[in-house]
Amino acid sequence: MLGGMITSTTALRVRYAETDMMGFTYHGNYFTWFEVGRVNMMDELGLPYRDLEKRGYRLPVLEAHANFLRPTFFDDRLELLVTVRERPGARLRIDYELRRGSELCMTGHTTHAFVNHAGEPVRPPADVLEKMRNFFEKA
Amino acid sequence: MLGGMITSTTALRVRYAETDMMGFTYHGNYFTWFEVGRVNMMDELGLPYRDLEKRGYRLPVLEAHANFLRPTFFDDRLELLVTVRERPGARLRIDYELRRGSELCMTGHTTHAFVNHAGEPVRPPADVLEKMRNFFEKA
Amino acid sequence: MLGGMITSTTALRVRYAETDMMGFTYHGNYFTWFEVGRVNMMDELGLPYRDLEKRGYRLPVLEAHANFLRPTFFDDRLELLVTVRERPGARLRIDYELRRGSELCMTGHTTHAFVNHAGEPVRPPADVLEKMRNFFEKA
Amino acid sequence: MLGGMITSTTALRVRYAETDMMGFTYHGNYFTWFEVGRVNMMDELGLPYRDLEKRGYRLPVLEAHANFLRPTFFDDRLELLVTVRERPGARLRIDYELRRGSELCMTGHTTHAFVNHAGEPVRPPADVLEKMRNFFEKA
Repeated sequence: MLGGMITSTTALRVRYAETDMMGFTYHGNYFTWFEVGRVNMMDELGLPYRDLEKRGYRLPVLEAHANFLRPTFFDDRLELLVTVRERPGARLRIDYELRRGSELCMTGHTTHAFVNHAGEPVRPPADVLEKMRNFFEKA
Repeated sequence: MLGGMITSTTALRVRYAETDMMGFTYHGNYFTWFEVGRVNMMDELGLPYRDLEKRGYRLPVLEAHANFLRPTFFDDRLELLVTVRERPGARLRIDYELRRGSELCMTGHTTHAFVNHAGEPVRPPADVLEKMRNFFEKA
Repeated sequence: MLGGMITSTTALRVRYAETDMMGFTYHGNYFTWFEVGRVNMMDELGLPYRDLEKRGYRLPVLEAHANFLRPTFFDDRLELLVTVRERPGARLRIDYELRRGSELCMTGHTTHAFVNHAGEPVRPPADVLEKMRNFFEKA
Repeated sequence: MLGGMITSTTALRVRYAETDMMGFTYHGNYFTWFEVGRVNMMDELGLPYRDLEKRGYRLPVLEAHANFLRPTFFDDRLELLVTVRERPGARLRIDYELRRGSELCMTGHTTHAFVNHAGEPVRPPADVLEKMRNFFEKA
């Protein structure tokens, strides 16, 4: 049986700048929070995203999706759960769940590919793949 | 046979503030462009979104999705095609296509519901439904 | 002799979304960091900004100023020093210094007034004035 | 007698994403509008900013200032007047006035320096200086 996954949790606090006149967090800003959670996950894996960029790699977003279940408000303390459920290959899919205490406020995912500075798709760096794949059981 | 749809086109120009260190438009900012296109479409329908809010309605985003096909760059002149393909009911689904000349740069969609000031789901205003449904053929 | 001041320090980390194609933090985003520092200072004073708004007060920005001395970069860990040097009255002036380790990256200030929900200037709440003025020596 | 100045006017419309829960435009977003006005002014001078960057120049913001006189609201149609009042040299100072009809909503300024890709100060390109200085009378 195959199994395993990578998980990481990031604490967030809603900024006034992130709200809109509806009194909620503007929906587009959740994608920035996804980024904050991803960067944190990469840190915890020992693969800081800043270093990946210095080595010439980039991880642009190919696809982004969000389901907004409950609004979030200025100064809310939130918890973003970031999960990699599928063994990373040429593409990397990341799932997100945002909670305020026990309330699930939103879910979403992003898909990424490794590219070089010219924006051309490249093989993921071997050490990145290995570190990530260690979380998934061997067949 | 049923048919018909609502379409609207909005010209956009990429702001420096909207780029990131990758040199492209930051992916989260495309959702703001969707909003600009939606607001424009509502204007063209004779249903300015500002007026809807004054009448006590809001149209929060329940779901947002984007596929990033090609990066866009500072100062790019873009065209955002906004389409309502499904006859609006309790929910309103809007589709987006972003082009730079003949190049398709991204596609996406958002789903909305009408709510009142307290955030509770309400029936869409009759005049809004009627104006929108006029674009769709009767069964 | 008069003296005293209120100070508060907030840790910040540069988000990818906050950078621009120059590779630096986009200058407009520093004003959001000022807000994060202000909110934090109010918390430390036992006067959460969220509560002030619930009591019907708002503290809009009347004036904002920034001097950019050194660029900051994605993932930089920064420290924002927020200071109230002048005894608060009808207006509240707040000063900011942003450091990366020992490097001073920027300085700035904002000026605020208390207004009610209608946007009309009002006297600052007595408890807020008192808590803030406790930091300043009596004449 | 010396005189003359460069002026340019840019139409703006407030986006929903630019508002905050106070119901106004978030103050930090005005600096993005300054940028939109500057880029437009450079276009009108026949010196598109995009081209300057391609030639290796950048014009980072050294100082930014804003006085907020009246709030602006979602969907407001605004006019931003951008002015260069001082003959440009190593530094370029730009002034801004934002109006809604006859109402002056805000004023501000930014100061810029020309730098190269490494961020080092450089002499402004000769053609830029000349085109800009043509607007100022000779002594």
